[in-house]
Amino acid sequence: MCQLLGMNCNVPTDICFSFTGFRARGGLTDHHRDGWGIAFFEGRGARVFLEPRASADSPVAELVRHYPIRSLNVIAHIRKATQGEIRLENTHPFQRELWGRYWIFAHNGNLVDYQPALSGRFRPVGTTDSERAFCRILDRFAQRFPDAQPSPAELHEVLRELAVEIGRHGEFNFLLSDGDRLYAHCASRLSYVIRQAPFPVAHLSDQDLTVDFNLVATPMDRVAVIATTPLTDNETWHTMEPGSLLTFCHGALVSLGENRTLASPVTCAPACNGQSNA
Amino acid sequence: MCQLLGMNCNVPTDICFSFTGFRARGGLTDHHRDGWGIAFFEGRGARVFLEPRASADSPVAELVRHYPIRSLNVIAHIRKATQGEIRLENTHPFQRELWGRYWIFAHNGNLVDYQPALSGRFRPVGTTDSERAFCRILDRFAQRFPDAQPSPAELHEVLRELAVEIGRHGEFNFLLSDGDRLYAHCASRLSYVIRQAPFPVAHLSDQDLTVDFNLVATPMDRVAVIATTPLTDNETWHTMEPGSLLTFCHGALVSLGENRTLASPVTCAPACNGQSNA
Repeated sequence: MCQLLGMNCNVPTDICFSFTGFRARGGLTDHHRDGWGIAFFEGRGARVFLEPRASADSPVAELVRHYPIRSLNVIAHIRKATQGEIRLENTHPFQRELWGRYWIFAHNGNLVDYQPALSGRFRPVGTTDSERAFCRILDRFAQRFPDAQPSPAELHEVLRELAVEIGRHGEFNFLLSDGDRLYAHCASRLSYVIRQAPFPVAHLSDQDLTVDFNLVATPMDRVAVIATTPLTDNETWHTMEPGSLLTFCHGALVSLGENRTLASPVTCAPACNGQSNA
Repeated sequence: MCQLLGMNCNVPTDICFSFTGFRARGGLTDHHRDGWGIAFFEGRGARVFLEPRASADSPVAELVRHYPIRSLNVIAHIRKATQGEIRLENTHPFQRELWGRYWIFAHNGNLVDYQPALSGRFRPVGTTDSERAFCRILDRFAQRFPDAQPSPAELHEVLRELAVEIGRHGEFNFLLSDGDRLYAHCASRLSYVIRQAPFPVAHLSDQDLTVDFNLVATPMDRVAVIATTPLTDNETWHTMEPGSLLTFCHGALVSLGENRTLASPVTCAPACNGQSNA
C-alpha cells in the first residue's frame, strides 16, 4: 500500500512540516521503501522530484524537507511497489501536458489486470497500473473536450465517471491536479484537514515535531492537506467516504456535482500573494 | 544568450565535474541569472530539476553538484531570458511524452515572431519561443509517425528538416533526447568533446578544478559532452559547424544521413553496466 499526500492552499505555502512526517513513512515509521516523489506547482509550471529509493535516506528528500518551496498545489507519493519494477519511470507522481497545462497524478491501490484501450495520445512510459490509469484519464479528457479545458463542473463529472470505471479493476485512491485545483478520490482510505484561523499547534504522528501555525500564517491563509492517513495526532481530520471525489481549490472544498452537500463550499477565487507553511 | 550542456555516455556517468563549471556560468563567471534546469534520464524515466533563479546560488544546484546521479543522457540549461518572463514554466529543459518515451529539450537562441501552427496535441504551458519550437518538433514527429517511433535515420531526417524550418526564425541551437540518443543542433555555437581511454586530466575553464578521469573511469567508458562553449581548457573540443545536426549514442557520434562523413561513426549498441564520472 502506497502513501499519498496532497496540499491545496489559497496562498503559496511550503510543505516542510507535513513532508517531514510523510517522509518518515518511506522506510522509517512505515515500510514503503520502493521510491518516492513530490510535485510542486508554481504558477503554471511544475517541478517534480523523483527518487526510486526510500525517502527516509534520500538526499533529495532531505533537500525538500529543508528547502521551503512555496506552492498552491502539491502532490507527493511514497511507493510500495505492487506492479512494475522499482525504477524511475515507475515512480509517482506522473506528469503530462493537456490543454497547455501540466497535470500531475499519483495513485494508491492496485488495479488488477488493468489494460485500458488507449488512443495513443498519452502512453505509459513505465509498467505500472497507475500510469496506465493516468493515461486513460487524460485520454478520455482529451477525447471528451478536444479543444480546451472545460468548466470545473464538467471536468469533475467526467472524472467521477472515470473513477467509477477504473475503480472496477481494484483499489483506486488518487490525487490529480492541474495547478489550480486538486482532485482527491477515495476508494478505501483518504483523509483531509483544512487549516485556517484560529490555527492549531499541530503535532506530527510520525515524528515528535510541533509547529504553531499562528506564528507562520496570516489570518487569511487557508490550507487543505490530504493524506492516506492523518499526519497529525491533535487535529480533526475528516475521513473521506469510499467512492467520493472531492475538489479542493484555494484550501477549501469546492461545491460541484457530487460535492453539493459538503460543508464549507467555496467559489474558487483568485489567490492572494502571502506565503504560508504547512 | 543561454548556455546549453549535454552528456551522452555508454555507461551511467555522473555529471558533477562538468556541472560544477557549467553552474558557475549562471551568475558567477557569466551573467545568465534567469533560471536553470537539468534533466537526467535513468532507463526510460527522467528526472528534471528546475529553478527560476540563478544556478550560482541555488540550493538545488548545490545538491546536483554533489549528488552523483548516474545517467546515459543529460541535458542542462542556464537561462538568459529573451522571451517569456522569469517563471518556472519558462525554465528549460522542457519535457513531454511521445510514443511512450519522455523527450527532453533545451534551446539557446532567439526565434523572432515564432508562432507555429500547432495541432493542439502538444501545447506550450509557458510563453517562450523555445517551448513553442519543442511543441512544433513533437507535433511534426507525431504527425509524420503516428503509430510508433521510427528508425533513428528517419527521425534524424525529419529533425534536420525541422531545424531548417524553425531556424528561419532565428538562432536555433538545441539539445533533444529520448533517453537513448542525444541530438545536438548547432545554429551558431556548440562544441563537443568525446572522452575515452587514455583519459585526460581535465581542468575546468570556469573554476579551478581538475579531475583525472583515469581514476574514476574504466578503459571501456566513453562520454560525449556537448556545450555552448568548451567547459575545459586543456582538452580538444570540436566546434560544431553552423547548420549541422549530430546524433550521439553511447558516447559517440552516430553516422546517419548528414553525419555520414563524420569521424568515429558507431553503431548504437546496448550499454554495459559500469559507472563513470564527467
